[in-house]
Amino acid sequence: MDLAEAKALYAISKESALKEWMAFLSIPSISSSLNHLEDVKACCSWLSSWMKEHGLPNEIWETAGHPALFASLRGEREEAPTLLLYGHYDVQPVDPLNLWTSPPFQPEIREGEMYARGAEDNKGQLFYTLSALAALIKKKGKLPIHVKLLIEGEEEVGSPSLPEWLEKNKEKLKADYIAIVDTGLRSKERAAITLGARGIVTMDLTVQGTKGDLHSGSHGGLAYNPLIALAEILAKLHDPNSGKVTVPHFYDKVVTLSKEEKALFSLDFDTAEYATLFGSDPTGGEKEFSPAERLGLRPTLEINGISGGFSGPGFKTVIPAKAEAKLSCRLVPDQDPDEIGALLKKAIEESAPPGISVQVHLHPGVGRPLRASPHSKCAAAFSKAYEILYGGTASKLLEGGSIPISAKLQEAAGGELLFVGLGLPDDNIHAPNEHFSLKRFEEGFLSICLALHHF
Amino acid sequence: MDLAEAKALYAISKESALKEWMAFLSIPSISSSLNHLEDVKACCSWLSSWMKEHGLPNEIWETAGHPALFASLRGEREEAPTLLLYGHYDVQPVDPLNLWTSPPFQPEIREGEMYARGAEDNKGQLFYTLSALAALIKKKGKLPIHVKLLIEGEEEVGSPSLPEWLEKNKEKLKADYIAIVDTGLRSKERAAITLGARGIVTMDLTVQGTKGDLHSGSHGGLAYNPLIALAEILAKLHDPNSGKVTVPHFYDKVVTLSKEEKALFSLDFDTAEYATLFGSDPTGGEKEFSPAERLGLRPTLEINGISGGFSGPGFKTVIPAKAEAKLSCRLVPDQDPDEIGALLKKAIEESAPPGISVQVHLHPGVGRPLRASPHSKCAAAFSKAYEILYGGTASKLLEGGSIPISAKLQEAAGGELLFVGLGLPDDNIHAPNEHFSLKRFEEGFLSICLALHHF
Repeated sequence: MDLAEAKALYAISKESALKEWMAFLSIPSISSSLNHLEDVKACCSWLSSWMKEHGLPNEIWETAGHPALFASLRGEREEAPTLLLYGHYDVQPVDPLNLWTSPPFQPEIREGEMYARGAEDNKGQLFYTLSALAALIKKKGKLPIHVKLLIEGEEEVGSPSLPEWLEKNKEKLKADYIAIVDTGLRSKERAAITLGARGIVTMDLTVQGTKGDLHSGSHGGLAYNPLIALAEILAKLHDPNSGKVTVPHFYDKVVTLSKEEKALFSLDFDTAEYATLFGSDPTGGEKEFSPAERLGLRPTLEINGISGGFSGPGFKTVIPAKAEAKLSCRLVPDQDPDEIGALLKKAIEESAPPGISVQVHLHPGVGRPLRASPHSKCAAAFSKAYEILYGGTASKLLEGGSIPISAKLQEAAGGELLFVGLGLPDDNIHAPNEHFSLKRFEEGFLSICLALHHF
Repeated sequence: MDLAEAKALYAISKESALKEWMAFLSIPSISSSLNHLEDVKACCSWLSSWMKEHGLPNEIWETAGHPALFASLRGEREEAPTLLLYGHYDVQPVDPLNLWTSPPFQPEIREGEMYARGAEDNKGQLFYTLSALAALIKKKGKLPIHVKLLIEGEEEVGSPSLPEWLEKNKEKLKADYIAIVDTGLRSKERAAITLGARGIVTMDLTVQGTKGDLHSGSHGGLAYNPLIALAEILAKLHDPNSGKVTVPHFYDKVVTLSKEEKALFSLDFDTAEYATLFGSDPTGGEKEFSPAERLGLRPTLEINGISGGFSGPGFKTVIPAKAEAKLSCRLVPDQDPDEIGALLKKAIEESAPPGISVQVHLHPGVGRPLRASPHSKCAAAFSKAYEILYGGTASKLLEGGSIPISAKLQEAAGGELLFVGLGLPDDNIHAPNEHFSLKRFEEGFLSICLALHHF
């Protein structure tokens, strides 16, 4: 199949694909929220039905958490390799809601961009993939190679329930290649595949002082203020001069690449463009590394939320009993998320000042960091597809984000893994006004058609 | 009037006083909340009417903010001194609401304690004062001395609108003595008057990084996380070894007392009792001073609120664009709140790391620190009243809290100022489950009757 044929296929699929993509986006499948349990379930059912109606028979895996979908589609050539495609139908929370121009679950097209929570991550990328598969099957009856699909509903909470199912379904999942369709390009003009993703470990931190809230006049100078303790504990986690994480042994297992190894990756970075896009220079992270190295090759420790005392308009002269923070680390080979979590828990809990108790609760949904081979047939097929679409030679990127289940999926399915996708840095994923352009939805559809024909 | 007569007076006043106190407590007069503007107004009207019906004619001062009440009651002896009594009818916010056993504006008596927001601060102390005045007038037609009343509705927000009125009404306010009925005892067995209150200055702090929220995977290591910046900025405000505020010149104007001057004050402090009451040792503040000195003689810088990123159940891997904190200082003579506010604003704004902007917004409702003479007729009269009630010699306390308007009230009325009242450290003022015992309500009533007869 060449580009013209793929474009013809999109032309006849476009209208219903866009309409059904919007229906998919309108289901608030926020996996982290107990208020959305039924919505997540409904989203899975909707997708399963849609797939069945479009030639993609599938089974629902009722995990201990949110359900997953699995499908296995035989290719036209029996000797063809098997490609396992991974995506997820769950999305991030939407607050702060007041910053959205249109409601996050009422998808709206403005200036060629689809605005909705999940428009890119991952409902957009997943739906162009499924639309392409459905269109190919409708046209030709069979796909050029064997394709398996694993679509989960817990990616945004670290896939806590899926590993058990992967373990039990190794035979079903068996594949030569795995493509995680959840990453992106650095710029919309430049073909790229992604050869690594960082691992992740997340935790909650609670700082407790007195039994109840106190008046800051009657107790100021007596009680150790938990908010001061929290600031001190959090500030100590980084060396402000070097930007390095100060937790002992945090960097011990980080693999240092040789100059030659580094040369494989596209480590160029446009600082001026970043400042224009995001309104601030990239001044975070370890000062001794370049921005692209900090993003792809180095681990981080971030504070993702902080709360305690009185906030909002007005003032309350309180010393609160309790303060909380949420922390996460992005990890690189060969850091182990469980080990890093334990190091942090120990360092933080030991840093409590007198009169204050500190507890760290590690979340179960960890993810190991991953690096993929640039030489696999899968890397070649997707590179080719993107090169046809965008010209030039596909860059080899490292993703700063994490797809926590990747490592376990690779262990279960046994194949070589690659990260692909057409996200862009300014799609506002995980943020208000997430969007994905209709042009890239089309290119995504074309890329799947082309890639499957280049294995 | 002796104790027996005062008790007889309370016996005939008690039933209606308690009933009407509960009606007063049920009006949610939260002065810091724009949602409660009408409630604050209604509370003032209710109180004005109640006072008129009980022989306390008064006028409402419609300030630029919440209204205040003023009354002037001639005493039976023309040559008697004039005592200006001060109280406030506004209350603190009530969150976290889920920690209240009974709703904050549905006053409930449990085991001899009245539970409600304002039960002590200041609706309890104010209402025993007014009930005593009303009962004395009902019984004798006139009070033993001239009494003026100033009751405001903005104490909990720093009395921003009152100073202008005080300035305009100096003649009306003119008094020989001023008693701020808004402080307390250290223990319920021990008579005490309060000879000082700390000043206050409050501010909001905003830390801004990029234009919008970011994904902590795609941007971790690139963007300077505003939550990390906030923690670093806040942690730097104290030296963790000495507990001292690090802002340059913060302590420059703090008056150091001689040993003899210190000996005047009750600076004993029961650390074990504090730990039992509040669940944690008093480990806050400057390490070189004793707890009572830290509370009464030393200034503080507290964080009263902190927010940013994702909080609540679940997790969101976000690097937020913005983070916020609320700060306040308690000040001692001769620190000037405006000067300290400016020092802090400068130090904090200059501490922004690259890529982060920091803004401090100082609130207008500042209060100067105050020290009162232990030798005034007013100090003698209230000491005597409390000594009759509790025995022994009245301690001379220093209040850690602030009554921001005190200094300006003293300037306008011209008299000698004293802080009195029957609050206790564990009344949970400004916190969930605020309470005030019916026994102390009675003792408050008696103390007013007795004090007015000892001038």
